[in-house]
Amino acid sequence: MDALTRYLDENRDRFLDDLKAALRIPSVSAQPEHREDMQRCARHLADELKRIGMTRSEVRPTDGHPLVYAEWLGAPGRPTALIYGHYDVQPPEPLELWTTPPFEPTLRDGKLYARGAVDDKGQVYMHVKALEAHLKVSGRLPINVKIVFEGEEEVGSENLAKFLRAHRAELDADVIVVSDTAMPGPDQPALCYALRGILYTQIEVVGPAHDLHSGHFGGAVQNPANALAAILTALKDGDGRITVPGFYDRVQGVSAEERAMINRTLDEKPYLAEAGAPAPWGEKGYSTAERITIRPTLDVNGMWSGYIGEGSKTVLPSFAAAKVSMRLVPDQDPVELFPRFEAYVRKLAPPGVTVKVRDLHGGRPYLSDPKHPMLQAAVRALGRAWTKPPVMAREGGSIPVMETFEQTHGLPCILMGFGLDDDQVHAPNEKFSLSSYFGGMRSVAYLYEELAKSS
Amino acid sequence: MDALTRYLDENRDRFLDDLKAALRIPSVSAQPEHREDMQRCARHLADELKRIGMTRSEVRPTDGHPLVYAEWLGAPGRPTALIYGHYDVQPPEPLELWTTPPFEPTLRDGKLYARGAVDDKGQVYMHVKALEAHLKVSGRLPINVKIVFEGEEEVGSENLAKFLRAHRAELDADVIVVSDTAMPGPDQPALCYALRGILYTQIEVVGPAHDLHSGHFGGAVQNPANALAAILTALKDGDGRITVPGFYDRVQGVSAEERAMINRTLDEKPYLAEAGAPAPWGEKGYSTAERITIRPTLDVNGMWSGYIGEGSKTVLPSFAAAKVSMRLVPDQDPVELFPRFEAYVRKLAPPGVTVKVRDLHGGRPYLSDPKHPMLQAAVRALGRAWTKPPVMAREGGSIPVMETFEQTHGLPCILMGFGLDDDQVHAPNEKFSLSSYFGGMRSVAYLYEELAKSS
Repeated sequence: MDALTRYLDENRDRFLDDLKAALRIPSVSAQPEHREDMQRCARHLADELKRIGMTRSEVRPTDGHPLVYAEWLGAPGRPTALIYGHYDVQPPEPLELWTTPPFEPTLRDGKLYARGAVDDKGQVYMHVKALEAHLKVSGRLPINVKIVFEGEEEVGSENLAKFLRAHRAELDADVIVVSDTAMPGPDQPALCYALRGILYTQIEVVGPAHDLHSGHFGGAVQNPANALAAILTALKDGDGRITVPGFYDRVQGVSAEERAMINRTLDEKPYLAEAGAPAPWGEKGYSTAERITIRPTLDVNGMWSGYIGEGSKTVLPSFAAAKVSMRLVPDQDPVELFPRFEAYVRKLAPPGVTVKVRDLHGGRPYLSDPKHPMLQAAVRALGRAWTKPPVMAREGGSIPVMETFEQTHGLPCILMGFGLDDDQVHAPNEKFSLSSYFGGMRSVAYLYEELAKSS
Repeated sequence: MDALTRYLDENRDRFLDDLKAALRIPSVSAQPEHREDMQRCARHLADELKRIGMTRSEVRPTDGHPLVYAEWLGAPGRPTALIYGHYDVQPPEPLELWTTPPFEPTLRDGKLYARGAVDDKGQVYMHVKALEAHLKVSGRLPINVKIVFEGEEEVGSENLAKFLRAHRAELDADVIVVSDTAMPGPDQPALCYALRGILYTQIEVVGPAHDLHSGHFGGAVQNPANALAAILTALKDGDGRITVPGFYDRVQGVSAEERAMINRTLDEKPYLAEAGAPAPWGEKGYSTAERITIRPTLDVNGMWSGYIGEGSKTVLPSFAAAKVSMRLVPDQDPVELFPRFEAYVRKLAPPGVTVKVRDLHGGRPYLSDPKHPMLQAAVRALGRAWTKPPVMAREGGSIPVMETFEQTHGLPCILMGFGLDDDQVHAPNEKFSLSSYFGGMRSVAYLYEELAKSS
């Protein structure tokens, strides 16, 4: 066992205590009463990064909660990694559903329970402790490192984007490393090389000036709820393909080899069991694994109209609305697609109603080349740290901050996360498995070494 | 001017005072704190009916609020009319929107403002005072009269149905008279000879066991909101015809003559203006007037699924539901149609979801023959009382109590109401125009005379 690995092993108890100390700070970004806690948590992290030997470490103010910036740049000629994480957490409510209090981290059965345990303080601390191990064992890091830990990930990262744009040169790097994702199982690491983008809209259908008596007006004026249903239905054809003109124009083809890899990654049975869905369903000609990775989708996320209480009310509603989001794949662009979507929805609207389409938010899809030397370095690191080599994964979701990094930096990203599906992210009894914490710590410690070799 | 008409004219002030006295009793059937007021109001009415000379008048208990029964049967060989009305009123809330307090009847510009002014105490008192006029002027009525004034119309008339069934023989009559509807304008009386029935359902679509992340599961499992939209859309074809198999089987044809009359009755421009709808819309091959009278309809009354708050939430909902009601025309039968509707909706459901259809309530359509001697008597009475002959109207709505009378009695009904569209029924500042009160009173007084001639 080398000195680095030994250091990581021998200091486990303290690494756990240090994480617990950070978890005790209720850094809830959404709740104004925790403003001071946010400052305190940023300060705590900056002090910790100073203590382990980063040459620069400071709390940087923003228009909202501060972020923590740190760097160690003592490896000229070696690559520079920009490590991103966030120290803010989701609100802990409802408190009564927690087995132990959210800000009193508690160990049970090899899992650490606390708000922020996995999202994202635990994964932030994997990096902090891996950096400590290198600095203590060798007095240096194998690569140059810049760190940005933000305090507003759970509330939209608005000020992070401004900060990244304002400090573009200062934050220049060769690769971005993010640990805020999941792995398929407790002993199966993954490297995520693609995320889907998103276009999230709201369709509003207005009919009569006010709710009408369905007996006096039903059948004689257009009903906006029926009209909305017709619009939503027409957005897909019988094969589950989205009918918006030009929607698929920029969708990249995927090689047979990659499709085969994607299909090997997903075990459909436990996936459907987790969904509690009676059967798979989706676009014709594609497998479940393909549908959630390399194909765009369209889903109603919410829908409302008229009377929704108990019993019956004979109302013809004046208004109906739906939230409709599309997941996008490379090279689809939400900015290009929104006007097409809007025009198409308006065209679908039957006579007798007026339709408004709102663009609630958008994010571009993200794709790295899995064969990129930086990503291959991550593959080697994960292979060394775990009993199995990593699966190469496309994730169906979207991480808005990746879009920001892509816009400002245009760099390869390593998405190397160690959460598990049952970690109760954003819910009561959030946890982080110690096997993920320590396995992840070893993985990122090795990643710095492997990145040094890939320059 | 005959003695009857003179009596009606000379006693106007007192007839107004007597109505005001009844309106001061807050007989709100839905609110338990008014239970005593309900008793008091029933007693007040029964006493009034006794005072004017009805031979029998009593408060009859039910399992809920009491009803008032009265009779005068001193005209053997003449027809018997069963007069129906209700003394209970809707809750007056929100109180702050009333110009004058709901239970302090106030006269402004020839209109009497109070909760229950038009619905239905004012129309009940038209009958009470018309009966008084006959009894005081002639010492007798031209026909036999039985009266049922119930106290639960605003809460579903459940105990009325039981009472009618239990006293079928005692309540035997030749015609039923109901004054609880509207007239097209302040000087245009109407006789309603048809009402649509109703089948009110709730469609519930269940997909995954719980809400899912739309990034991880969107496109791979069926979305119940999209599925519901598809079901709702398939319920009508491109011509606005309902696609439920057999739905139109029992729909009666209507003569060209009647269609012409129906089309003369509706002035489409003010009708659409009242709706605030940009354009008419409905089943191909029928006019607006026909669509709301002689044709069945299907409307979404309410619809809900997933996230309906501000902004965006990337959820794939586990559940979606819609309230869907159909207005029925003779001889459609909600009891026969529900299982067909249910089976069809289940058939429309795409794979990957389960669908439940609930029957929330049903009522059969109602149709009298406008040429029936009893209805022709009403036409003559209205012609005598107003400056114009009545229009013969089919109404698009449903009056559940008519369904009850039809089931228990199977008699011709005279629906002779004097409300106006702007009477604010069920809303703050409910009113009844004095021209309707006194014109209606004269109309029903003449009706008793005309019914005597039609035996």
